[in-house]
Amino acid sequence: MTDIYGTSKTTIAEFQHLIRDMYLEKDVARGIDGTFMWLMEEVGELASALRNGTQEERQAEFADVLAWLATIANVAGVDLAQAVARKYGSGCPGCGKFVCTCADAEKP
Amino acid sequence: MTDIYGTSKTTIAEFQHLIRDMYLEKDVARGIDGTFMWLMEEVGELASALRNGTQEERQAEFADVLAWLATIANVAGVDLAQAVARKYGSGCPGCGKFVCTCADAEKP
Repeated sequence: MTDIYGTSKTTIAEFQHLIRDMYLEKDVARGIDGTFMWLMEEVGELASALRNGTQEERQAEFADVLAWLATIANVAGVDLAQAVARKYGSGCPGCGKFVCTCADAEKP
Repeated sequence: MTDIYGTSKTTIAEFQHLIRDMYLEKDVARGIDGTFMWLMEEVGELASALRNGTQEERQAEFADVLAWLATIANVAGVDLAQAVARKYGSGCPGCGKFVCTCADAEKP
């Protein structure tokens, strides 16, 4: 598996599956609410790393947030790859362009 | 681009690049702090969708959180694919296994 996940060619779907294989049993037992708390803790750690951390620490916290997001998606039965393809695969959801031309004040 | 991003074969790196191409200019102008506020707003919308939303709404909110996470990574100069490969590419960061054997109370 390391030959897949050790490269930058990992797909979003593969990463979600990796996290599913690694943790699903525990994740389902914990449920969405309990898992969301873990996500929030990691988001807090990311904020801290962005303010005061080294680039290596930031990188680790981004990975953790992504892992917990994948975890919740697993428990909720949401396919992350399909989710981003639907929302962003045809361009910005606001203006429809691949280089966004929405007004600055508008999302996103 | 839709033939790449409209499938489930999108890599994490490709998604981060898509978001970079789409929004980087605005993102850099907004900075990490301002962008983090947007991420938090989307996390709140995800929580709401998980509690009361349809599966389609949940999917859309997962996509938005992932997009804002990629946005902050772009501004912070962090490669998400490298981040997850380093942290999870050799197994669970806790026990080193591809199916986690950490005690339930332990992270993750």
